[in-house]
Amino acid sequence: MKKFIDSPATVLDMSLQGFAKAHADIVELSTEPNFIARRQRKQGKVALISGGGSGHEPLHSGFVGYGMLDAACPGQIFTSPTPDQMMAAAEAVEAGAGVLFIVKNYAGDVMNFEMAAEMLDKPNATVLVNDDVSLPKDHAIGRRGVAGTAIVEKIVGAAAEEGYDLLACKALGDRVVRATASMGVALTSCTVPALGHPTFDLAGDEIEMGVGIHGERGRETGKWVSASEIVEQLAGHLFDELMPQAGQGALLHVNGFGATPLVELHLVYELAWQTFNKRGVNIRRSLVGNFTTSLDMAGCSLTLTLLDEEMQRLWDAPVNTAALRWGC
Amino acid sequence: MKKFIDSPATVLDMSLQGFAKAHADIVELSTEPNFIARRQRKQGKVALISGGGSGHEPLHSGFVGYGMLDAACPGQIFTSPTPDQMMAAAEAVEAGAGVLFIVKNYAGDVMNFEMAAEMLDKPNATVLVNDDVSLPKDHAIGRRGVAGTAIVEKIVGAAAEEGYDLLACKALGDRVVRATASMGVALTSCTVPALGHPTFDLAGDEIEMGVGIHGERGRETGKWVSASEIVEQLAGHLFDELMPQAGQGALLHVNGFGATPLVELHLVYELAWQTFNKRGVNIRRSLVGNFTTSLDMAGCSLTLTLLDEEMQRLWDAPVNTAALRWGC
Repeated sequence: MKKFIDSPATVLDMSLQGFAKAHADIVELSTEPNFIARRQRKQGKVALISGGGSGHEPLHSGFVGYGMLDAACPGQIFTSPTPDQMMAAAEAVEAGAGVLFIVKNYAGDVMNFEMAAEMLDKPNATVLVNDDVSLPKDHAIGRRGVAGTAIVEKIVGAAAEEGYDLLACKALGDRVVRATASMGVALTSCTVPALGHPTFDLAGDEIEMGVGIHGERGRETGKWVSASEIVEQLAGHLFDELMPQAGQGALLHVNGFGATPLVELHLVYELAWQTFNKRGVNIRRSLVGNFTTSLDMAGCSLTLTLLDEEMQRLWDAPVNTAALRWGC
Repeated sequence: MKKFIDSPATVLDMSLQGFAKAHADIVELSTEPNFIARRQRKQGKVALISGGGSGHEPLHSGFVGYGMLDAACPGQIFTSPTPDQMMAAAEAVEAGAGVLFIVKNYAGDVMNFEMAAEMLDKPNATVLVNDDVSLPKDHAIGRRGVAGTAIVEKIVGAAAEEGYDLLACKALGDRVVRATASMGVALTSCTVPALGHPTFDLAGDEIEMGVGIHGERGRETGKWVSASEIVEQLAGHLFDELMPQAGQGALLHVNGFGATPLVELHLVYELAWQTFNKRGVNIRRSLVGNFTTSLDMAGCSLTLTLLDEEMQRLWDAPVNTAALRWGC
């Protein structure tokens, strides 16, 4: 296994040190336990905290900063962070208006954030993100939280910055989750450093439709056809899920899983834009790039968020993080 | 070959359409011939134009916008753009103060930009970027232009925005080039769509030190050791080339070639920061991410630019492009 690491045991800590140095104007790193906190905070603002297994960067550490998260708790690669990380982060960034946890729907994340929420002696609420429509709605452990998480964090982050209170942030977050659907496709597996070999196998002409962001097998293993055909299928699933009305405004997010070049992601964006446009969706905002990654997996996901005026205004609001930055 | 394309013949045009739609607030695409131009331009400002083969995105199209490039000319994948693209771009964005071409040192790019410069009926100058120190200084066709190009484009772009005239922009660009050194390492090859198979072969334990951004073989094929050892070697070459004085301020750029996860790039940044710091270099600014890519190659490069106060001020100046955005 060739990876820029010295050993699987040190990769996360060394990477966090580098991240904190490279973005020292925006964030600071606390260790034992690990969390990344926003450097400039505001009294009386709802504190937004997210986190999850590492290996999905820039999610979540790259979204800490003005207009988005107040703190992120990075677990080991593809491993939930622990309640003590969440507690320490909450104690550090809570600013008198309570804490909103934004949690992707994975059993370990949900359990540990729940424990932290229970132990925390401050008003708090949780938004659970479950945007992955590759699993059925009635799936036993529910649908997974994937690339739509970044959209939730951006929109709710802007609201908190504007002074929305805890209940309003929670209600808005739930609303963005309901308006958001994602689905991905893998062309290759990823390789977890501690494992040292690919998580799953795909033949040279195979793809995994509905793959999860940790390399979970998806809806079906299919044959590679063409970009047009694959994008049409993914977009169709999002459309069927959200059932937008004719002329409905939306945000289209093409997310790379890590190893797919930007030249392909922009091509996917073009195809997705065409197919949604043909179906009467009015793509008003876009985000194209590697935002919710799966280490070195080749592949991408589409996320569609149906926008109302409030959500669009909050999407456009200034943000200053390592990975998303505008208006600041 | 599994790639998100319908055919190698259409990948560039479809990708450019998607790029232009996703960033319609910043750029516009002209076709026949292809170029990406900044939407909001300023009369009396030196026009900065760059370009080169596609497959290195976000370089150069992602750097078009306020405070950076006025236009970018994308060739086919790993293929020089043509003089008619450069002429058309120059005619479109020249604003009364002449044109500065920023050109990476590759035979085809140099020849075609020279032809355009000769034919162009407007004052113009060229900055040649040759920051890749993996080839010796007296190499027959000179050193290649690689990830340092983005640094040149950012700093000169800010100067042009401030009103520097053509000669001043040219002199500044040459100065940044002299202050910049880069070197990369590949862990895997890339695959060019039209070729359909990897450009070169590396065994499971091999790396290519000094690789070029098109998968050109480098200084030597070596054995994988550890991230620390590889970063130490790369940083040593940059240090020996630039010979910074003790306490010298610098910008450290860790550039991913495409398939290397951000968690590894930040670890590389930490290692590089430590080794430069130990050698007395004062890392004042940083840039970590995939900026000058080689399609789906795994690997990364280090770039060091020695900063004077003027260069640091211009680096910090506002920029609003698809790939670099701050202060706007």
